[in-house]
Amino acid sequence: MTDKSNISIIGGTGALGAGLALRWARAGHAVTIGSRDGARASEIAKELSAKAGADITGLENEAAAAKGDIIAVTVPYASHAATLDTIRRHLDGKLLIDVTVPLMPPKVRTVQLPEGGSVAKAVQKALGENVRVVSAFQNVAAAHLADLDHAIDCDVLVCGNDPAARNQVISLANDAGMKAWHAGRIDNSAIAEALTSALIFINGQYKIPGAGIRITGDPAPAES
Amino acid sequence: MTDKSNISIIGGTGALGAGLALRWARAGHAVTIGSRDGARASEIAKELSAKAGADITGLENEAAAAKGDIIAVTVPYASHAATLDTIRRHLDGKLLIDVTVPLMPPKVRTVQLPEGGSVAKAVQKALGENVRVVSAFQNVAAAHLADLDHAIDCDVLVCGNDPAARNQVISLANDAGMKAWHAGRIDNSAIAEALTSALIFINGQYKIPGAGIRITGDPAPAES
Repeated sequence: MTDKSNISIIGGTGALGAGLALRWARAGHAVTIGSRDGARASEIAKELSAKAGADITGLENEAAAAKGDIIAVTVPYASHAATLDTIRRHLDGKLLIDVTVPLMPPKVRTVQLPEGGSVAKAVQKALGENVRVVSAFQNVAAAHLADLDHAIDCDVLVCGNDPAARNQVISLANDAGMKAWHAGRIDNSAIAEALTSALIFINGQYKIPGAGIRITGDPAPAES
Repeated sequence: MTDKSNISIIGGTGALGAGLALRWARAGHAVTIGSRDGARASEIAKELSAKAGADITGLENEAAAAKGDIIAVTVPYASHAATLDTIRRHLDGKLLIDVTVPLMPPKVRTVQLPEGGSVAKAVQKALGENVRVVSAFQNVAAAHLADLDHAIDCDVLVCGNDPAARNQVISLANDAGMKAWHAGRIDNSAIAEALTSALIFINGQYKIPGAGIRITGDPAPAES
């Protein structure tokens, strides 16, 4: 794995956040999960620690954000803005991994991107360049992440304006058992944010429990 | 193959349109390519016919649109609106396959979706429900399409409001040697339209000549 990172997962008691917590803890990272309810975070953290065979800490969201060097946000879209407000003063200088999919129930199978085109792009704009926002992990089925024995058949598109920050997230994806790709600036997060609706559609249409994507194509041979 | 279709490809002298023309003609469909310049369309059609081993007709765009039962639009984004105006009165009751990627040079590696979120969605809205608009083929490398010996390692996301029209396009994709998926309503075209920018980014970052995507996941076994 990469160097040990100190990661806090805001909304880490949900399915997607818990899956990342399990996989990162197992890979040797120091993981904290946050919840609006600190007692619940602590309780779920105990369950996850047992499952991962590694310590996971549970804290209230703001305390979790204060503790982490890398902050992953895995809350539902409906509580995304309010949650960011809560933790905002703990983000300066940090890497923020935004996993948000702007699903708007009941039409979750239809793309409904927010004004401005992308959640993560809006977050980068709102927080300023002192927070390195990277978008990733929107397309992986949460149930597959949470199953440590499941080999994940889905690549991760990693978007962000800072290539070094993208590299860090690519390493973290590798540590969690996924192949990940530099996919461009934070604007390109629109792709991953939108793609989830098509995957949900495909799951229904073709009875697939958790469709994913792979990027195809081999590098051209170097010229001799 | 599916039943023989009468397909006109508007902008069919370009790389992407010519590739589809070659593959559909070879599969037995009656293919016409359109261009603003009818003489040029006729000349390119002769070259493509030789390559495909099947007749391809070349006409000026409006005549081509009048002739086809299925109309594919493969013009650059910059001339998309003007081209649709030219052929609009020949579209009623037809299936319109929109292949447009809203690339805005010079930043073609960055997603810049148009207001309203998607070209194809806007086209469906503008043309009304009497034209069945289906979006597809935005993510396939044109050079791969044009090479009849190239096995295409890229799935096609097929979006549109009419499932039967989507089915027709899925069959046409199969005839052209590609696997295609029902990917939801025309709104979901935003995904394929945006994805091309990430694939261009990936081509540059990883030195891949024509990255693509595959959808992953197997259907759940039927209950016994």
